[in-house]
Amino acid sequence: MTYFSEASSAEVVNARMGAQTDPRLRAVMHALVTHLHAFIKDVEPTTEEWEAAIAFLTKTGQMCSDTRQEFILLSDVLGVSMLVDAINHRRPDGATENTVFGPFHVDGAPERAMGETISLDGKGESCLFEGRVLDLDGNPIQGAVVDVWSDNEDGFYDVQQPDIQPQWNNRGVFRTGVDGAYRFRGVKPVSYPIPDDGPVGQMLEQVGRHPWRPAHMHFLVTADGFEPITTHTFVAGDPYLESDAVFGVKHSLIVPCEPVQGGETAWRSAFDFVLKPM
Amino acid sequence: MTYFSEASSAEVVNARMGAQTDPRLRAVMHALVTHLHAFIKDVEPTTEEWEAAIAFLTKTGQMCSDTRQEFILLSDVLGVSMLVDAINHRRPDGATENTVFGPFHVDGAPERAMGETISLDGKGESCLFEGRVLDLDGNPIQGAVVDVWSDNEDGFYDVQQPDIQPQWNNRGVFRTGVDGAYRFRGVKPVSYPIPDDGPVGQMLEQVGRHPWRPAHMHFLVTADGFEPITTHTFVAGDPYLESDAVFGVKHSLIVPCEPVQGGETAWRSAFDFVLKPM
Repeated sequence: MTYFSEASSAEVVNARMGAQTDPRLRAVMHALVTHLHAFIKDVEPTTEEWEAAIAFLTKTGQMCSDTRQEFILLSDVLGVSMLVDAINHRRPDGATENTVFGPFHVDGAPERAMGETISLDGKGESCLFEGRVLDLDGNPIQGAVVDVWSDNEDGFYDVQQPDIQPQWNNRGVFRTGVDGAYRFRGVKPVSYPIPDDGPVGQMLEQVGRHPWRPAHMHFLVTADGFEPITTHTFVAGDPYLESDAVFGVKHSLIVPCEPVQGGETAWRSAFDFVLKPM
Repeated sequence: MTYFSEASSAEVVNARMGAQTDPRLRAVMHALVTHLHAFIKDVEPTTEEWEAAIAFLTKTGQMCSDTRQEFILLSDVLGVSMLVDAINHRRPDGATENTVFGPFHVDGAPERAMGETISLDGKGESCLFEGRVLDLDGNPIQGAVVDVWSDNEDGFYDVQQPDIQPQWNNRGVFRTGVDGAYRFRGVKPVSYPIPDDGPVGQMLEQVGRHPWRPAHMHFLVTADGFEPITTHTFVAGDPYLESDAVFGVKHSLIVPCEPVQGGETAWRSAFDFVLKPM
């Protein structure tokens, strides 16, 4: 086990860790090396393929900037972000399921009165979002904070278009009363592509995948004594529901967007959130 | 299988690949996703650990430049480079074993006459390197090209110190005659650390590993009709032989560096190369 050999490669590498290594780091590195070497042995890459992998990882890192995180995109399109999210948010039947947080949340969005609109530019088809925040027994939760954000009619969040959209466009924070209800107006979200002009976009193209996410409204629902929920509601009927580039869709989160006749909005999306106690 | 679930995560991701995907790419991606998800399920990372992994990969990419390849370093210290090398250079018993190429070879080193020195700055303890290039039956190979390179007494290659060392210092190309013999003077190589001022160096420190490589002479031996050999000879007795940071040492490549009494060099390192036919 002292010197490297193909047969015992992972064991040789793992045996090198020092005795004082943090136990959690040791466990993670041991598993990483074991699975990584098993992958290499499965595919037996040529030297040229190994060089291509090095070049891909290098380009992915170099694409990262203050406004672009290509390694998170890579994690997203490989299903890793959703898997980590699922592992960390296992919930009992009946509780609202989590999905990925995404990169577009902004802390400190303005708190608005129930029923107010979050669409500051007025662009897009108006939609009423309403429902209740409940505990597992169906009781309303008072004082729950419902933080929402979405793209606009053109498929962009305000932070992506600081020169075009007003700040806090399609964002808002609502606080439930004694009935646990929330209600706000916004625009019907539209599907949009994840950034695909980098190495991750090239990879998607090479494996015959598109970069689109189905239309969704983001929710972060918090309440004292309950586990926070980070999730989306997805617009039923969207053509990308079954092929979300980041695998965010869960069946329970698909919500009909119903046309409204003669109402103050053109559409209505109703969804109740069910929180698990801490 | 349409929507993501923790249980079927890898299958859902792999099912998304398009029918027209190149078969080799499909096989590699399928294995990557399968092993990557198995790793995640084994360690169940917290959200904070996932964020730390993203940050590590990002920093590793951003450390790369024209003169620094941190992802190759990462591959090296995880034993991946040696594993890919081993997979691509399986040889019969008796043939000289390969080891990693490393980043310091330069094409076009001057061809020198047998017996000449490659040490242009004269620094270090002089050492005679000699031996033969043979086929599997022990017959000498005429016209074999022996391309050699090493660090100097201070542990640096010429390309790392272009303002200090003369170009082609400790490099040279030798061509065997009818006896298959090679012979050149150089300096006794010294052990040196891989670059450890980046994320890979921090990782090594956290798992209780040092960045040192044992002293070695690089050889690239080629001959018409034979598989090229990329390898090192390691100086027997080096304190880092059993803990080479990049796992390059194989037992068969450890060569005694013997003191010479009254010779033209202080040391002598003798090693025969045995090439496998193409």
